Amino acid sequence: MSNVPAYIATSVDAPLEAGTVWRRDVGPNDVLIDIRWSGICHSDIHTVRGDWGPTVYPLVVGHEIAGTVAAVGSAVTKHAVGDRVGVGCLVNSCRECANCVAGAEQYCLNGKTGTYAEVDRDGTITQGGYATQVVVDADFVLRVPESIPFEKAAPLLCAGITTYSPLRRWNAGPGTRVAIVGLGGLGHMAVKLAHAMGAEVTVLSRTLSKRDDGLQLGADHYFATSDEATFTDLAGSFDLILNTISQNLALDQYLELLALDGTLVTLAASAEPITISEFALQGQRRSLSASTIGGIPETQEMLDFCAEHGIAPEVEIVAADQINEAWDRVLASDVRFRFVIDIETLPALVG
Amino acid sequence: MSNVPAYIATSVDAPLEAGTVWRRDVGPNDVLIDIRWSGICHSDIHTVRGDWGPTVYPLVVGHEIAGTVAAVGSAVTKHAVGDRVGVGCLVNSCRECANCVAGAEQYCLNGKTGTYAEVDRDGTITQGGYATQVVVDADFVLRVPESIPFEKAAPLLCAGITTYSPLRRWNAGPGTRVAIVGLGGLGHMAVKLAHAMGAEVTVLSRTLSKRDDGLQLGADHYFATSDEATFTDLAGSFDLILNTISQNLALDQYLELLALDGTLVTLAASAEPITISEFALQGQRRSLSASTIGGIPETQEMLDFCAEHGIAPEVEIVAADQINEAWDRVLASDVRFRFVIDIETLPALVG
Repeated sequence: MSNVPAYIATSVDAPLEAGTVWRRDVGPNDVLIDIRWSGICHSDIHTVRGDWGPTVYPLVVGHEIAGTVAAVGSAVTKHAVGDRVGVGCLVNSCRECANCVAGAEQYCLNGKTGTYAEVDRDGTITQGGYATQVVVDADFVLRVPESIPFEKAAPLLCAGITTYSPLRRWNAGPGTRVAIVGLGGLGHMAVKLAHAMGAEVTVLSRTLSKRDDGLQLGADHYFATSDEATFTDLAGSFDLILNTISQNLALDQYLELLALDGTLVTLAASAEPITISEFALQGQRRSLSASTIGGIPETQEMLDFCAEHGIAPEVEIVAADQINEAWDRVLASDVRFRFVIDIETLPALVG
Repeated sequence: MSNVPAYIATSVDAPLEAGTVWRRDVGPNDVLIDIRWSGICHSDIHTVRGDWGPTVYPLVVGHEIAGTVAAVGSAVTKHAVGDRVGVGCLVNSCRECANCVAGAEQYCLNGKTGTYAEVDRDGTITQGGYATQVVVDADFVLRVPESIPFEKAAPLLCAGITTYSPLRRWNAGPGTRVAIVGLGGLGHMAVKLAHAMGAEVTVLSRTLSKRDDGLQLGADHYFATSDEATFTDLAGSFDLILNTISQNLALDQYLELLALDGTLVTLAASAEPITISEFALQGQRRSLSASTIGGIPETQEMLDFCAEHGIAPEVEIVAADQINEAWDRVLASDVRFRFVIDIETLPALVG
């Protein structure tokens, strides 16, 4: 048992502050990770600010973790001290249900354990990656290929897999027309990944302000959703639409952009109810779905895919004392395209 | 040009009454059909009663038509005088768009022409099958296999294809768990078809009053949705749910019954908006979709499938002067399981 430096949420509305967080002893199947980089995900903010329901404070968030192995338990064979590793949104699951056995631990029928703010199998509340160290079961630790720049590995563990998994599930590839709604942390990864898979990629963003970025990231087309003509011009144009926007959209408009048998997949969870017209679905036998992260085997597959295709997120490095400011900028959509915390700057803040 | 006996809606709220309806001359690619049996579909009532928007009166509804060929145009080779044929919900489409070329005329990108209450390519308003004759383009006329009892063929043209198409689209078969919501005209066909395809079939009905019927039709299981325990006991149990109920359901409850990657498909269109929770979708990457009838090749495939498997709807024959009463009984769910009008009783009503 030890306490390690962390950046901590103490209430639903207070700024985060430096402090320490408890980490368990390294068990036989555990890996102790020295965290080097930690990504900032909009989910961190939603959780702390209570957008998805009440949470427990103090809380350390962060589920985009890249670091090196500092110690391993006696039963661990997959990871060794010094290895570059990552941890995403999952740190445990039942390992026994049909979904876990199939490698879809994110849909564990007995309840996945998220990297923060969830009750782990030992009864403790999980605490995330805005900290210098974390202890994670080896089965939930990913290998980070050497060719991925280390600071860019972190966002792959959430933004990367959250977009990779639905692209695979709905068969993005040559001949498929994929639209990405929103060009933020998730959206920019979706563009890169869909492009690398060979799909024809269109970005649908509120304005054209990030158009040059979008095309450079790999988009073939870029349209502004503030322009009503976009919705008439592109009606029936897509096989798959990934909605990365956490605000509720007027989904009927987007459903109408789908061709026969197309699917609109929402990725950014919202507690607001979804309201759509049945006719928008029935008109071309369209589907509405939602997807969340990916399982452990698929997350490793995504990391290896990114290494093979030279794909990494665009990141902006922030020091630990800039986290609150970075959160404000996430809320203002003022980030290109993901903040990553330099965890080396954290210990100095802890008195 | 001729006027033929028909049973006619004259306003949004008046009872139907006997009269005549105009039929065009038989063109080169047309088939003149002596209608023998005409099914009563809930859509007939929705259309006349304005549930889906305003319509034009006088109107003859009916899109489950079984009859014999009385004459064919000079270019017609597929059908001959005396053939047993059927007409469903479609009488025209553009024939040129990607969907039409693919045999999905029901999703014609330039607008399908429904069998009644829609503007046909020649500018006339289509008039349906509650009549003694109809003239239909040969491409939209189906062959009715001899082994299907004639009076039972009619409901296959709507209730049959409306359930067959989504069962095929979502791969119902051995090893898949299919739930059918509602055991009416559509529901009872869905049970028979899904059973014949080899799926494990569960009926979800408001009460257990039709349980014996359901099991006899081919259901493996039967549960009452008025019993809250149904929703907890069956959580995560199905790969596919077909919702045949036209009233809006509390869809979140039904979504939760789906396993990983399962799909809930609504078949009975409703103008009411659908409201669901994103979490119900995201929890197991579930999809919500909607499907409408089927294309012409698939409708023929369905008829041939029914002939091969000895499948036909359960019908109750009514005389033409019982149509209004039959409509009341449809609205009261008091039908086992489809009304079919004996069109031979119609001419005598026309003065």
